[in-house]
Amino acid sequence: MSQLKEESSAKCWGGYQKVFSHYSEELKCKMNFGVYLPEFLFKSGNTEKASALYYLSGLTCSEQNFIIKSGFQRYASENKLVVINPDTSPRGCNVEGEDVDWDFGTGAGFYVDATTEKYRTNYRMYSYVSKELIKLVEQHFDKYIKKDVRAISGHSMGGHGALVISMRNPGLFKAVGAFSPIANPINCQWGEKCFTGYLGTDKSTWAQYDATELVAKYKGPSLNIRIDYGSADPYLKDQLKVENFVNAAKKANVPVISNSYDGYDHGYFFVGTVIPEHFAHISKVLNA
Amino acid sequence: MSQLKEESSAKCWGGYQKVFSHYSEELKCKMNFGVYLPEFLFKSGNTEKASALYYLSGLTCSEQNFIIKSGFQRYASENKLVVINPDTSPRGCNVEGEDVDWDFGTGAGFYVDATTEKYRTNYRMYSYVSKELIKLVEQHFDKYIKKDVRAISGHSMGGHGALVISMRNPGLFKAVGAFSPIANPINCQWGEKCFTGYLGTDKSTWAQYDATELVAKYKGPSLNIRIDYGSADPYLKDQLKVENFVNAAKKANVPVISNSYDGYDHGYFFVGTVIPEHFAHISKVLNA
Repeated sequence: MSQLKEESSAKCWGGYQKVFSHYSEELKCKMNFGVYLPEFLFKSGNTEKASALYYLSGLTCSEQNFIIKSGFQRYASENKLVVINPDTSPRGCNVEGEDVDWDFGTGAGFYVDATTEKYRTNYRMYSYVSKELIKLVEQHFDKYIKKDVRAISGHSMGGHGALVISMRNPGLFKAVGAFSPIANPINCQWGEKCFTGYLGTDKSTWAQYDATELVAKYKGPSLNIRIDYGSADPYLKDQLKVENFVNAAKKANVPVISNSYDGYDHGYFFVGTVIPEHFAHISKVLNA
Repeated sequence: MSQLKEESSAKCWGGYQKVFSHYSEELKCKMNFGVYLPEFLFKSGNTEKASALYYLSGLTCSEQNFIIKSGFQRYASENKLVVINPDTSPRGCNVEGEDVDWDFGTGAGFYVDATTEKYRTNYRMYSYVSKELIKLVEQHFDKYIKKDVRAISGHSMGGHGALVISMRNPGLFKAVGAFSPIANPINCQWGEKCFTGYLGTDKSTWAQYDATELVAKYKGPSLNIRIDYGSADPYLKDQLKVENFVNAAKKANVPVISNSYDGYDHGYFFVGTVIPEHFAHISKVLNA
């Protein structure tokens, strides 16, 4: 079993916000991830376990942004969720060019397994999240986490990651959420840039990481997808394209709850405002 | 009337989190401060105004930390408070030595009016907060804010600021809060360092900025002081010395509510956890 090192721990809303580091076999580097353990786990005499919610962050974020900026801990505690949130790319691998742009490379792993020569050794965030991290968490936190009751959610690039990882692994997650997701990346500049860099110019290889393409062909157990976004999000039309995903899901008879919040933009003030409803919904699905 | 420039605005918990900048006459530099306007102000047909809560941050903070990290906006909205939070020192004045240490100079104005030669021109955070900022806010946000119904609170160095400013200006604030305040700065290393630098080595001039000294002699209308701190705060014993303040207040018959929260430390996870109770208390006092 891979070693975990506790980097920090602080009491928050009755539970504990912790950060762990470990060496990732998939990414070939040291990685951090956050774990929030809700209050009820520490009540004397408690024997109940929590469900696990994996949360994926957006472009430029480390594991810290969601931990510090969203205020999610109250709602994780209230809804009895252990929340695990990884970093968004490998770190410190010294891949030439990875630190040039804010929207590619470091902080922008895009939750794919790269195939291009420069990136394929380290940029394997798809396998890191969907295999290595889940296995690691379920081994180390077995005491706290129910087996096989998982949810996944994320913001922006992380919303894309949550949708793609859940649809490519039917049954792995019982509930799927996305805040302001990049929902059709093969048709937006952020996606095109990252897919070209990580997957190459042959666009036929891109569809496997495009939520709108994947939902059109989805066969599997219910995903219970909920998407929340702000009506004043400046990226909604040109980058997120939530409408494309919602239309494709409708055509494929995949139920999707999609909520537009009037006047909200793309940032953490929006995410923080909607988390109470979003987490309550996920918890309800997990416990149904 | 001094000019305000809106630097940012985002919808959050139904209201708006804004940041403004202006040129400060007291500090002789450009300053930023946050203003959160709660949801009810924007309800159609609303004619009610909000009470104002001034919030002072701790060492190293700009106006951004509290805005981003505490999640206070929900509780400001629920309790109908406009929250104004300034920066913690002048910025960009190029005072020699101000950027050498994290706990003195930039980000560490300590809410005093400096008298030492190097600092007395710019480091006037006491007058900035207690006079210039309040006047500016009440002029510009007259539409939203009740006249003469103010509260003040703050964290660590900002808790010190809230206690000192309220006691030196009886009647200016109807409610006073402090999270983990530096409560007896003349007797701790953080205070001694800043007071020496800003006020000089004559310790007889320091007592006017020491909450424990001030409360012992306080005569004036009720302050309604509430202090919240974590039992696992690593600074509690050597730097904060809340006990000294509580004992002095008791001796002087100044009522103080003082709450210790089991297992919490000094950071924003503690502040964010306690804000709901803290803000509800302040709101109750303001509306009593």
